Amino acid sequence: MKIGILGTSMVGQTISGKLAELGHGVMVGTRDVAKTQAHTEPHPYGFPAFSVWQQEHASIKLGTFAEAAKHGEIVFNATNGTASLAALKLAGEANLNGKVLVDIANPLDFSQGNPPSLSVSNTDSLGEQIQRAFPAVKVVKTLNTVTAFLMVNPSLVANGDHTLFVCGNDVDAKAQVTAWLKGWFGWKDMIDLGDITSARGTEMYLPIWLRLWGALGTGMFNVKVVQQGEG
Amino acid sequence: MKIGILGTSMVGQTISGKLAELGHGVMVGTRDVAKTQAHTEPHPYGFPAFSVWQQEHASIKLGTFAEAAKHGEIVFNATNGTASLAALKLAGEANLNGKVLVDIANPLDFSQGNPPSLSVSNTDSLGEQIQRAFPAVKVVKTLNTVTAFLMVNPSLVANGDHTLFVCGNDVDAKAQVTAWLKGWFGWKDMIDLGDITSARGTEMYLPIWLRLWGALGTGMFNVKVVQQGEG
Repeated sequence: MKIGILGTSMVGQTISGKLAELGHGVMVGTRDVAKTQAHTEPHPYGFPAFSVWQQEHASIKLGTFAEAAKHGEIVFNATNGTASLAALKLAGEANLNGKVLVDIANPLDFSQGNPPSLSVSNTDSLGEQIQRAFPAVKVVKTLNTVTAFLMVNPSLVANGDHTLFVCGNDVDAKAQVTAWLKGWFGWKDMIDLGDITSARGTEMYLPIWLRLWGALGTGMFNVKVVQQGEG
Repeated sequence: MKIGILGTSMVGQTISGKLAELGHGVMVGTRDVAKTQAHTEPHPYGFPAFSVWQQEHASIKLGTFAEAAKHGEIVFNATNGTASLAALKLAGEANLNGKVLVDIANPLDFSQGNPPSLSVSNTDSLGEQIQRAFPAVKVVKTLNTVTAFLMVNPSLVANGDHTLFVCGNDVDAKAQVTAWLKGWFGWKDMIDLGDITSARGTEMYLPIWLRLWGALGTGMFNVKVVQQGEG
């Protein structure tokens, strides 16, 4: 499949790398290709600059947001949540309309320091903002509740027996994304939370996720939803 | 132990009933004792009026918020989150200072319909508001992430193998509450998320909890935190 990934940071690298490994034709989109190519310093969080990382992932192309969106039969939004709407505007409605957009972004606002707050929450969400801005795009919010390495390899924790959430207005798009994430990455337990307004729930989960990261001393965790009658 | 429970609704009834069953001396606090005694209609959600419920729980006393707070060596806030600060003000600083206050409330605001939003969130929380208003009280936020019946009987789901969160500034108070909840109710897996600002995380978890309730068709569920190296 031809897949466009918007965002060159850790999430973009991790998703792209895994999808390329599976044989898909991946193009990663960035705001300024020349700038991304020229940048070689590792990120403060420790992951490599995209240009350095790309040397070991030769099949993965780099393009503008618009080129990557046009390339993809489906498109992943792996940009920073606070920059996602701007990035998607550059990607362009014409390149996105009718396609499934897998929205992984979280609207984390670090402008007031740590812990971050959310730049949109409670009565709205980034997923909804994107769906409203691009009404002809099938926005499916998912993967945003786990760290990048777990997104593409859930078996790293508890033999993969933990839960991923899916939100979106288009039932067929959600079913398709669910099937892809199970097939590509090995997700086993996926729960459809409802329409795109349920993205409020998965984005507002980030504050407890960040506290759990602090308490556990690792980001390699997730939650398993357990209910009466099971286990 | 002498325990004060603020709130006569489903959570107050469930916690009180279990603690009385365990032999504790429980007084439930309400705003207006005469009004609570006179009210006999079941709640729209199906649980009984306190006065009816109390007939089968004869050892449980009813008092004002102030009387219940004074009675308790520890106090539970089981009021509606949007009314908690007013209830605690009526309970009175003099009756609460120096004590552990277990805050179970969620600031759910139904004024704009369903699903509710949170009346405080993102950069603040009800737990923090209470701690600021009562600086000499040891506020421990916990139990607010599960439905009332699970609070006092976690074994009803997955043999009790799921996770409860604890937040608060006083390390000893958190350790004490953790020991009580394990001993009284059978909680096994409790995670200390940090100081009272981490209550933002557990309160902002409510939107995904409510969506899960809708998706699963039952409130009898919880999450189990699983991490690398386990399972």
